[in-house]
Amino acid sequence: MKKLDVLTPVGIIVGFIVVLFAIFINGDLAETLAFLHPSSFLIVVGGTAAALLVTFNLKELKILPTVLKSTFSREENELADVIDTFVELSDRARREGLLALEAVVEEVEDPFLKKGVLLAVDGVEPEVIHDIMSAEVAAMEERHSKGRAILEKAGDFAPSWGMIGTLIGLVLMLRNLENPATLGPNMAIAIMTTLYGSLFANLVFLPMATKLANKTEKEVFMKQIIIEGVIGVQSGQNPKVLQEKLSAFLAKSEKEREDEELLEEGR
Amino acid sequence: MKKLDVLTPVGIIVGFIVVLFAIFINGDLAETLAFLHPSSFLIVVGGTAAALLVTFNLKELKILPTVLKSTFSREENELADVIDTFVELSDRARREGLLALEAVVEEVEDPFLKKGVLLAVDGVEPEVIHDIMSAEVAAMEERHSKGRAILEKAGDFAPSWGMIGTLIGLVLMLRNLENPATLGPNMAIAIMTTLYGSLFANLVFLPMATKLANKTEKEVFMKQIIIEGVIGVQSGQNPKVLQEKLSAFLAKSEKEREDEELLEEGR
Amino acid sequence: MKKLDVLTPVGIIVGFIVVLFAIFINGDLAETLAFLHPSSFLIVVGGTAAALLVTFNLKELKILPTVLKSTFSREENELADVIDTFVELSDRARREGLLALEAVVEEVEDPFLKKGVLLAVDGVEPEVIHDIMSAEVAAMEERHSKGRAILEKAGDFAPSWGMIGTLIGLVLMLRNLENPATLGPNMAIAIMTTLYGSLFANLVFLPMATKLANKTEKEVFMKQIIIEGVIGVQSGQNPKVLQEKLSAFLAKSEKEREDEELLEEGR
Amino acid sequence: MKKLDVLTPVGIIVGFIVVLFAIFINGDLAETLAFLHPSSFLIVVGGTAAALLVTFNLKELKILPTVLKSTFSREENELADVIDTFVELSDRARREGLLALEAVVEEVEDPFLKKGVLLAVDGVEPEVIHDIMSAEVAAMEERHSKGRAILEKAGDFAPSWGMIGTLIGLVLMLRNLENPATLGPNMAIAIMTTLYGSLFANLVFLPMATKLANKTEKEVFMKQIIIEGVIGVQSGQNPKVLQEKLSAFLAKSEKEREDEELLEEGR
Amino acid sequence: MKKLDVLTPVGIIVGFIVVLFAIFINGDLAETLAFLHPSSFLIVVGGTAAALLVTFNLKELKILPTVLKSTFSREENELADVIDTFVELSDRARREGLLALEAVVEEVEDPFLKKGVLLAVDGVEPEVIHDIMSAEVAAMEERHSKGRAILEKAGDFAPSWGMIGTLIGLVLMLRNLENPATLGPNMAIAIMTTLYGSLFANLVFLPMATKLANKTEKEVFMKQIIIEGVIGVQSGQNPKVLQEKLSAFLAKSEKEREDEELLEEGR
Repeated sequence: MKKLDVLTPVGIIVGFIVVLFAIFINGDLAETLAFLHPSSFLIVVGGTAAALLVTFNLKELKILPTVLKSTFSREENELADVIDTFVELSDRARREGLLALEAVVEEVEDPFLKKGVLLAVDGVEPEVIHDIMSAEVAAMEERHSKGRAILEKAGDFAPSWGMIGTLIGLVLMLRNLENPATLGPNMAIAIMTTLYGSLFANLVFLPMATKLANKTEKEVFMKQIIIEGVIGVQSGQNPKVLQEKLSAFLAKSEKEREDEELLEEGR
Repeated sequence: MKKLDVLTPVGIIVGFIVVLFAIFINGDLAETLAFLHPSSFLIVVGGTAAALLVTFNLKELKILPTVLKSTFSREENELADVIDTFVELSDRARREGLLALEAVVEEVEDPFLKKGVLLAVDGVEPEVIHDIMSAEVAAMEERHSKGRAILEKAGDFAPSWGMIGTLIGLVLMLRNLENPATLGPNMAIAIMTTLYGSLFANLVFLPMATKLANKTEKEVFMKQIIIEGVIGVQSGQNPKVLQEKLSAFLAKSEKEREDEELLEEGR
Repeated sequence: MKKLDVLTPVGIIVGFIVVLFAIFINGDLAETLAFLHPSSFLIVVGGTAAALLVTFNLKELKILPTVLKSTFSREENELADVIDTFVELSDRARREGLLALEAVVEEVEDPFLKKGVLLAVDGVEPEVIHDIMSAEVAAMEERHSKGRAILEKAGDFAPSWGMIGTLIGLVLMLRNLENPATLGPNMAIAIMTTLYGSLFANLVFLPMATKLANKTEKEVFMKQIIIEGVIGVQSGQNPKVLQEKLSAFLAKSEKEREDEELLEEGR
Repeated sequence: MKKLDVLTPVGIIVGFIVVLFAIFINGDLAETLAFLHPSSFLIVVGGTAAALLVTFNLKELKILPTVLKSTFSREENELADVIDTFVELSDRARREGLLALEAVVEEVEDPFLKKGVLLAVDGVEPEVIHDIMSAEVAAMEERHSKGRAILEKAGDFAPSWGMIGTLIGLVLMLRNLENPATLGPNMAIAIMTTLYGSLFANLVFLPMATKLANKTEKEVFMKQIIIEGVIGVQSGQNPKVLQEKLSAFLAKSEKEREDEELLEEGR
Repeated sequence: MKKLDVLTPVGIIVGFIVVLFAIFINGDLAETLAFLHPSSFLIVVGGTAAALLVTFNLKELKILPTVLKSTFSREENELADVIDTFVELSDRARREGLLALEAVVEEVEDPFLKKGVLLAVDGVEPEVIHDIMSAEVAAMEERHSKGRAILEKAGDFAPSWGMIGTLIGLVLMLRNLENPATLGPNMAIAIMTTLYGSLFANLVFLPMATKLANKTEKEVFMKQIIIEGVIGVQSGQNPKVLQEKLSAFLAKSEKEREDEELLEEGR
């Protein structure tokens, strides 16, 4: 079970509050409701979806929901916890044998770590474990990069379809200039699709695409440590040595915080 | 015979439905018909075609229809089916000899697989088979990448020519301001070319260019497995071993689905 | 003597027909003549030229005419013809000696092939021939890539100078608003430079830059085959062997056509 | 303690003076105050912040203040001073032993240099010192590049949110055209957000992102010299040799100034 | 002493003539003078300068004048002349000894060549000469690439600040709509900054940045030949051999002209 990455919904909500604020300071509630324009929404979302249908195939588009969900979740595992788990597992394995891990691992929540330990318990060769788990990591990377491509394309298409909606609105308005009273509202509606397209791109699609890229990088890093740990446990490595080995990975990110403090002090 | 990739026509049709919807909600049938503006269509398509004629040579442009058609088709072969075929072929070859494959292969629909097996039956050296078939794959890649370049350039030129049409319309309109009644409709017509250019680029050319890139990547992958399979069959490899070898290729994509499920469960 | 690449002038002419068509459908002959606006032409061409003068030095700019001309010409040599020529030359050289080629080569039109054979006849060492001819190919590539850079920069500057002209026109117009009758025509003239800048970029400069890149790639490929051929002839290679060797180069492009047919059949 | 990089605040202040000047020459004090528009400020800053919240995670965003501060500071250390320090340290170490450095290093202000010397005094192995200090440099690079990514994204989002604010303002204005008196001021307010977004991007975010990149490059260079120096001191290198070795690094930048003078003379 | 690269000032002057021409054809002298708008000039130049102050540090900005000057100068040395000089020097060195070069080199104008020969006369080791002179070339490249970065950023910032000026002007104008007589002139002034920003970018900053890149490439090439020459002279190489060796560098560029002629003939 992954924890919620609060920032993603918070950011989107803050964005909509900013938009509402921008409307309120110049308008009233009636004005605000006018910005809920379902048909403009349909044009932008529908047009973007249509372009994505042409761009990708079904198998690629099916990845999208999983990938979207993952921009709302964050790694529950702290690097330090994962290392502690492996120290414990390796200690247990050395004392009670590999098979004893089967019971222990039941409590582990991370399905990737669990699967790895079970493979080790089953006596699968270390090279094979490495290959199987690395293939899984590569598949996740591939999946995320495809999902990212979809989000980036959506960020490209949304403003374009916003403009297409505005152009259609402008043409309609210009063909009916005889009634000046409707001129303003008609043009207001025309501009609405550009607003929607710009909002989707700059609050949802493009930010999520970048978050996905940052997240993937981190998850790959974490999973590589887990692979190292599983193989270390299986080969009966000394818990101390294993801890030291895995901490070498940790070094960089932990050091960051220490350095920060050290540099702060120095100033 | 390749199957239709339904998403490409569906996406384009959905796109046009979105456009029609955008017109209907503010106009009526007469308005909608006004958006069928053949001369605007001619300006954008003609201008884009003119620019493409200068950009590419005849041989390159002749590739376009084949390449366009291929964005509407998808691989019929499932990876698993191809592997099954090779297991069957290798089994038959070991029992009845390579020549027996000639009859079997008649039922195979994929021309690339067929050609490969016939080369094997003819006793062509494995290295030569590999070279001949790889050259064919390289030629396909080259052809697709050229086709993709044409689509991408078309996606660049179409909005530019839309704007050129609009500029011409604006100049004409501004030179005839004395009749205010025609002002609106004239400007509406001027904007129409920008609308057409934007639509072609964001619904047809750019999405198709990306689909082509994704498709090519997949086809190359599939054809490489077929090359491996043909050579394996010719060298009289054990069906089991061949299956295992080809499944290594399969691993990654199949694993994707499994992982997905496994991760879903874990959540 | 190189043949005319018909597509370049055809594309440019089609482009202008599209523009004229766009004008005619809304205007008349008088309107059309109004689009021949020499001063707008001068602003865009003059401004682009000025920017290019600052960007490049004299030696680089002198390359431009040759390079422009080359986008209007295409390789006369068919790959197959070149190979035939070399088979003939190698046959003759083996029967009558290298010196006999001097007479034969007189009829060859391609100056690069001619020069190569004459070097071979003169008894220049193969490595030296290779170096001399390769240096010539590299010089051509360098020259074309510089020419391409000039065309691409022109394609960047032309729309910018079109906009500069429009801004100047707008300022002049806005400073003289008191006479509404001149408002429209003045603004029409202002927009004209943007139209010209966009036309030059999207019909001439950018398409030509890409054509040059495609052409260069092809010519380099052809000239490399000629170098191989000249050295093969000089070293007295068997005509059959030489043909086979050069055809390996041919393979890829020829195969393209065959594959196409084969795939078509299969569908 | 790092010195203030005066140029960063000076540039920002000059930028605001330019803006004020631009307002004053056409308006008066009342006009100027109208440009202090807190709600427009909130829309642009709030929208950009919202997009950044979706784009990055908490750990990445926490880096921002430190990184922003660092664009206002500059290396106090002159390369030449650092080299002098190491010559002195190596001299002292050779005469009085490594332990004597503990007292000396107390006066050194640069925390990175201090830490390095203390590691050397503690008798840590040279390879380990190298690894520890290099990891710290890598962590700084990583941190700065993440900070730069945030600034660049902010520079992308600010103008987009400026435009979103303007679109909202336009819609509101167009829906209330009946009162022409409010038309101008309403549109003025609408444009204000685009102005704010453009200002933030082109005076603050994008310039700071580039300064950070330039600064990082320099600091990494300096810290690598310090690592070399620490290891040289520990291994009891001759002060002359150490000076020469470190000056090789210096060479390039010092040479710059000399060359400049030399070339100037020559002209 | 370097010669003036006439094209840079000629291009800039031609650009301004084009602008004046564009004004004259629609306006008169009074109109033309109105385009000399010091405050618009100050906004664009001041804003761009402010952004550059934030972007770069003092040391980097100090490079700018030297680098700007160098876009107005061109290599006086013709490649062929440099080679002649080295043939002469090597001949003299072989007949009268290295020390005799001290007198000869006094007449050499190029400070880089002079410095190299003096190093050779002083008996500095060839490897050291190579290192010293190469470091100088690298420093020049570094300096020019930094200068180019400044010009490119200026080309990015100028149009943005032009737009900022226009937005300020628009806001001021819209807040004072009650007096329609001032509407046009006010908007004219507002547009002026966009015009200035666009002019600076497309006539000065961006073209100069590219010229600098082209110039640097050439100078590095020339200086590498000089390094080869100095070392050849010092090692007492035969003048003929040295000439041949240096001409190998020449080959490519000279060959260009010859090929051109050869190809022209052939057509």
